[in-house]
Amino acid sequence: MTDLSPQHESRGAVSVEELARALPDSALVTDADVLASLGHDEAEWAPAGKALAALRATSADEVSRAVAACADLGIPVVPRGAGTGLSGGANAVDGCLVLDLSRMDAIVEIDAENMVAVVQPGVVNDDLKAAVAAHGLWYPPDPASAPWSTIGGNVATNAGGLCCLKYGVTRDYVLGLEAVVGGPGGGYGTRLRFGRRTTKGVAGYDLTGLFVGAEGTLGVVTEVTLRLRPARRDAPRTVVGAFDDLVAAGRAVAAVTARGLVPAALELLDRFCLEAVEEWKHLGIEPSAEALLLASIDTPGASGDEDASAVAAAFRDCGAVWAEQSTDPVEAEALFEARRLAYPALERLGPVLTEDLCVPRSLVPAMLARTEEIGRRHDVRIATIAHAGDGNLHPLLITPPGDDAARAAAQAAFEELLTAAVEMGGTVTGEHGVGLLKRRGMQRELPLGVRAMQKAVKDALDPLGVFNPGKVIGDDPDLGDATSRARASA
Amino acid sequence: MTDLSPQHESRGAVSVEELARALPDSALVTDADVLASLGHDEAEWAPAGKALAALRATSADEVSRAVAACADLGIPVVPRGAGTGLSGGANAVDGCLVLDLSRMDAIVEIDAENMVAVVQPGVVNDDLKAAVAAHGLWYPPDPASAPWSTIGGNVATNAGGLCCLKYGVTRDYVLGLEAVVGGPGGGYGTRLRFGRRTTKGVAGYDLTGLFVGAEGTLGVVTEVTLRLRPARRDAPRTVVGAFDDLVAAGRAVAAVTARGLVPAALELLDRFCLEAVEEWKHLGIEPSAEALLLASIDTPGASGDEDASAVAAAFRDCGAVWAEQSTDPVEAEALFEARRLAYPALERLGPVLTEDLCVPRSLVPAMLARTEEIGRRHDVRIATIAHAGDGNLHPLLITPPGDDAARAAAQAAFEELLTAAVEMGGTVTGEHGVGLLKRRGMQRELPLGVRAMQKAVKDALDPLGVFNPGKVIGDDPDLGDATSRARASA
Repeated sequence: MTDLSPQHESRGAVSVEELARALPDSALVTDADVLASLGHDEAEWAPAGKALAALRATSADEVSRAVAACADLGIPVVPRGAGTGLSGGANAVDGCLVLDLSRMDAIVEIDAENMVAVVQPGVVNDDLKAAVAAHGLWYPPDPASAPWSTIGGNVATNAGGLCCLKYGVTRDYVLGLEAVVGGPGGGYGTRLRFGRRTTKGVAGYDLTGLFVGAEGTLGVVTEVTLRLRPARRDAPRTVVGAFDDLVAAGRAVAAVTARGLVPAALELLDRFCLEAVEEWKHLGIEPSAEALLLASIDTPGASGDEDASAVAAAFRDCGAVWAEQSTDPVEAEALFEARRLAYPALERLGPVLTEDLCVPRSLVPAMLARTEEIGRRHDVRIATIAHAGDGNLHPLLITPPGDDAARAAAQAAFEELLTAAVEMGGTVTGEHGVGLLKRRGMQRELPLGVRAMQKAVKDALDPLGVFNPGKVIGDDPDLGDATSRARASA
Repeated sequence: MTDLSPQHESRGAVSVEELARALPDSALVTDADVLASLGHDEAEWAPAGKALAALRATSADEVSRAVAACADLGIPVVPRGAGTGLSGGANAVDGCLVLDLSRMDAIVEIDAENMVAVVQPGVVNDDLKAAVAAHGLWYPPDPASAPWSTIGGNVATNAGGLCCLKYGVTRDYVLGLEAVVGGPGGGYGTRLRFGRRTTKGVAGYDLTGLFVGAEGTLGVVTEVTLRLRPARRDAPRTVVGAFDDLVAAGRAVAAVTARGLVPAALELLDRFCLEAVEEWKHLGIEPSAEALLLASIDTPGASGDEDASAVAAAFRDCGAVWAEQSTDPVEAEALFEARRLAYPALERLGPVLTEDLCVPRSLVPAMLARTEEIGRRHDVRIATIAHAGDGNLHPLLITPPGDDAARAAAQAAFEELLTAAVEMGGTVTGEHGVGLLKRRGMQRELPLGVRAMQKAVKDALDPLGVFNPGKVIGDDPDLGDATSRARASA
């Protein structure tokens, strides 16, 4: 665990009693089992340190006091929501305070007239969707974890989901934030609002966009102002295509977007995923193909039928065994349910190491072929689900429990997949975040100067290294102290 | 002009000969008249300093050498494109090098398959639109300056336009950048690429988004990677509504969006604008109403007709004298042409001080009423054009040439409008940028802590204060040296 908090200069061990004295109005969690369970997210094999304590914050004021006390005592602060992250971004570092924000789950305001919602970070994504739907509105970002993951966590990772292809990612919906910040904002523990609640605004640098995806390393988000959309008028149409070759399915994805069609979602599942789901849930899917493509089309009215036919035609032109618009809404829902269940279904088979590559759409077939080749060479079972229309692939590396050799092989394949994505002009993380698992990959992806600029931003906004140290840019062997580098170059 | 470069510590006057010696391969512009014309944008009454020289850069390498030399010699660098800005963001500061990027106007690549374009900063917005249209693609951001303004300037200001309501602003289309940076990136003059060309990506902080809208204060953008959309299949429908009361038109705007309708554009012009355009261009518009609303609806197929009818109904329900879907494409085009010509038409009447307020949509009627009241009280003629669907209003304050009292009254009204927008939960700049004219307004809009964080980011990425000093956050009397503040608080 020694590499987890390289930039945090400890003042020596602080006792939990000292922290408790500094926070007389807060109930600290110190039970070892509870601490251990709050000390990690769902990233398989990401290292997790031993937290000093946890705090289930109930208000922004409590967060503010906790951050001030931790800065004072030299205790790192690791924020977390539901813990559904897949990169270790919410994992504890040794001696930290885990700041659990899941109880700050109020929907503060739904302003239907202006299509804006204001929420606390602990609101679950699907709960927000349901609340705004009652006003005829829609919050599009839909990570597969939507039934459990919180808006705070979605903001921290700039979460994507199924409908990004047409509707964008979390950052596209965050208008403004309230956060507890440190350093230049007025000292650690200061509550600040930035961003806006208007549709446009360019008064100063986009701190809001900077905080989205920063994984809690720049401050702790305590409130989020979100843009909403009108609810969709018609139920989306579903087009299903079955392929006896994974790479052919990838070609069909590239063909759909190259023809100017923009489905709301365009998902790929391979046979492995379908079998795992069917075995678990018995949804009545017949996994007879090597890959399934699921397209959701929400073009309104008759144009929707035209688009659905065009997507089916693109599937067939690229070698689909069959491709049809699903006329049975129950069947269509079952297919998307299978998509959502693929990850937990595979987890039942053994530890799953989750990739999150993104490549230019036209290279999806090449990346799928590369994935198969890497899996074969390392003898690793790789199941693939993909937000294929975005070029965002999730190869899932499954190992038998307790098999150390298989684990080592999976980790080698994991790093090789990252390198392949970078070589194709892609990225090591499309939507899960860097956390701990993608740090080395990010170092391969981004030039040193870019990482140095990111580190300079981190050091400027969190000079004490209190906020989630070691995550994202916080652990880069090629970077010294960016602040002193900047001073030297000046 | 003394307040223009507060953070730039000059090493004493540098002669143009010294700069020329440091840049032996570059042709410096030193002619006083040319320098004066390159030393300002179109912001009326924004102060402009006296540049030492200008450079019409022809390559990123030349930009790199110029930035390195300027950092060395203590010369501020002020980047500019076509100079169509309306906030003074491209205005010279005393002793600076004006870096004109308008000759770097190559469209480097159009990747139709992945719907991505890579361009140099000097490409004119409409030229890009035409080039990608040949591939069946569309670059939506459409500031009224699109026939003249450059992508680099659009990126610097995060330019908006008419179709933001449905299609977003420049930041929503910038996937990646190449920029010449300073400080931590590897020293002044370093060329770095950041961002991505995939649809999604969360590897590290969003430096790309941070640079968009930063008005050249963090570095000089030398290449832009842009996301494109498929071309729209049908010509948009136009709905026109005439109102005999400006505030009623505002209510109609709020009603359209509250009913879940999302036109591609929803523009407002008052009688003043219509008369000025008609007088100039004789388009055949009869300015018989106090305000005109123009909606552009691009919902495909028959749903488009339904939406157009629903928009017209919303107009009538809110008191439109008449509201119709325009069945004559020539007439519809003339109306949008009138919208685009409103600003230059008014400029013919005298100096125009341009506001750029944005308020929550539901407060558009209140802001229009407030604008009328402020105009009356200060005896200032205020014409209003608005991207009304976005809540983005452009009250245009027109003064007779050479009338100092009128100018003082207009400036007082200008500041009062900014304060009103902030009081309504809005922003002092929706799309034009802070530049010089909105600095005081931004200081009223943003809490001190937020400005201090912005200054900390600026100081971290531009420790020498070389890049466009004094603009945006660079001149804030409430902020000392943010870096030393950060150190003190640490």
